[in-house]
Amino acid sequence: MPRRQSYRLPKIPEMTIRRLSVYTRCLQQLEEDGVKTVSSQELAERFNLNSAQVRKDLAYFGEFGVRGIGYYVAGLKAELQKILGLDREWAVALVGFGNLGSALLHYKGFARQGFRIAAIFDDDPAKIGREVGGVRVLASRELGREVKARGIQIAIVAVPPEAAQAVTDQLVDAGIKAILNFAPSRLRTPRDARLKHVDLSIELETLSFYLAKGGR
Amino acid sequence: MPRRQSYRLPKIPEMTIRRLSVYTRCLQQLEEDGVKTVSSQELAERFNLNSAQVRKDLAYFGEFGVRGIGYYVAGLKAELQKILGLDREWAVALVGFGNLGSALLHYKGFARQGFRIAAIFDDDPAKIGREVGGVRVLASRELGREVKARGIQIAIVAVPPEAAQAVTDQLVDAGIKAILNFAPSRLRTPRDARLKHVDLSIELETLSFYLAKGGR
Repeated sequence: MPRRQSYRLPKIPEMTIRRLSVYTRCLQQLEEDGVKTVSSQELAERFNLNSAQVRKDLAYFGEFGVRGIGYYVAGLKAELQKILGLDREWAVALVGFGNLGSALLHYKGFARQGFRIAAIFDDDPAKIGREVGGVRVLASRELGREVKARGIQIAIVAVPPEAAQAVTDQLVDAGIKAILNFAPSRLRTPRDARLKHVDLSIELETLSFYLAKGGR
Repeated sequence: MPRRQSYRLPKIPEMTIRRLSVYTRCLQQLEEDGVKTVSSQELAERFNLNSAQVRKDLAYFGEFGVRGIGYYVAGLKAELQKILGLDREWAVALVGFGNLGSALLHYKGFARQGFRIAAIFDDDPAKIGREVGGVRVLASRELGREVKARGIQIAIVAVPPEAAQAVTDQLVDAGIKAILNFAPSRLRTPRDARLKHVDLSIELETLSFYLAKGGR
């Protein structure tokens, strides 16, 4: 059994959290391939990671390695899932049901990690009342009540940029403390609400960097 | 003028490239706010970054700071854009025109950074031949020819998971060296083609981490 430290997490870099998600996926893959134990070096080599970084990231949360063995794949995966809050289901509100909202509703990866879209909100009368994949589209003015009634703790904002701040204010008023924003807008939230901005062009820029470099 | 080192980039971490994109956005914002110069400390404080990390990341590419002044906002932004290949336009192929493909076509952030969707490919006869936002939907079998004819160097894969590998093979055959994949599938590419996988649930996991921690 790994010794798990009690922790208060004063200064864990967000990139470390992000990497924990990546490690969880690598361990999942190893598990599917029937691998029982893995060293940080093997993990790093196979998935193109940095082994020192792996050890440093994990050290924030406890001592998971066993001398002479490495990590138990299934055990470490379960520990990381627990740390990431993936050992439970989260009810998620999806606000905005255009093309992006629709794509996100059908995105397979969310449910697999325990993120269940529990309600969709939109202001278009043509959409309100429709049921899509077992989830009903509700009017935005019902947001406050529905968030409480359905135990929703996370919201995804997929509205046009000009509507994003008003929606965010509504979500914060409804008690939501975690918002994932896809709208390309600068948003203000109170300190105790965590806002994460998804900028899809950053992903393309990593690619253009390598292409541009190739041309030099 | 910053002294720019010639560089061959043997071992630049991908996270550094990712952060360069973030710095570029911060500098853009400073520029819009009329700020002319900024120190790494000010930059870090204002945008919640790590100033030592900023200096370390920039040091891979040259010496951009001026003693007693810091960085020239406009100058550093232009340098980073050049490094990221954002000082030019890239023709991008979008493969898959379902909800996600449609959302990506209309995503404002791409064009702003110089990524122009030059062609859309889909296999659905109902979609082929349609023109959307000035871009025509073409049949996938035309991919090889069109990629060459339009000077396309980057492709976005937004097809269902079961079609992703075949599409990727087609793209590689057409000479594409940079692929951004949204399909939740493990894909194989030759070594000289760079594949980046967008996993949207990772973004949610950073949020569930903080919520789960709050509950302890």
